[in-house]
Amino acid sequence: MNTVAPTPPELPPPLPEPAREELKLETVLAALADPLRLQIIQKLLLESEDYDHPCGWFGFDRPKSSLTHHFKALREAGLIRQRQYGLERRSRVRDEDLEQRFPGLLALVKSWRSPGA
Amino acid sequence: MNTVAPTPPELPPPLPEPAREELKLETVLAALADPLRLQIIQKLLLESEDYDHPCGWFGFDRPKSSLTHHFKALREAGLIRQRQYGLERRSRVRDEDLEQRFPGLLALVKSWRSPGA
Repeated sequence: MNTVAPTPPELPPPLPEPAREELKLETVLAALADPLRLQIIQKLLLESEDYDHPCGWFGFDRPKSSLTHHFKALREAGLIRQRQYGLERRSRVRDEDLEQRFPGLLALVKSWRSPGA
Repeated sequence: MNTVAPTPPELPPPLPEPAREELKLETVLAALADPLRLQIIQKLLLESEDYDHPCGWFGFDRPKSSLTHHFKALREAGLIRQRQYGLERRSRVRDEDLEQRFPGLLALVKSWRSPGA
């Protein structure tokens, strides 16, 4: 059991997102073709536990409106699932859907070395 | 031996391109995030023999200037190598470089189903 950020027993419903069978490679690639978005997905894949993370968890030095935009783009492309917790949206990678539709893609994101690294 | 389009014994030098170690995932994904470009790479992967193909081989119903632009973008991102044969540029996928740097990426492009398919 994780005492830092336990998953609530009843999750809020996911925000609108494409179904697994609606995911499109060109759309997923377009959403990932940005260092900040690659970093978001990579961090979720490498560091997150089995629960949703709020925007602030990422520690990016960007305006909230810009981050909100990037998370929305990732959700609409089908890369992340977002849930609304009060005023806050939390995100996690749709790893099973992505691995099933685009095997190996998340492994590439995991092994990506960001320009600043 | 292929009698249709034999590889000349001395190839023209490649047009400028990033070296293997300079390839960037975000740049490669951005170049692929377009159905026409996915189609170009997929066709080269699935149908081409071991030689370079001119623009016309693809049979796209697009203005030549538009195709030239897309091929240039793919070359500058490191996805294809282009050589100048007289007035014509011919292209092939940098499959070894891409597989070494981004294993599995070309398999995803191969298995992509274009929106029109």
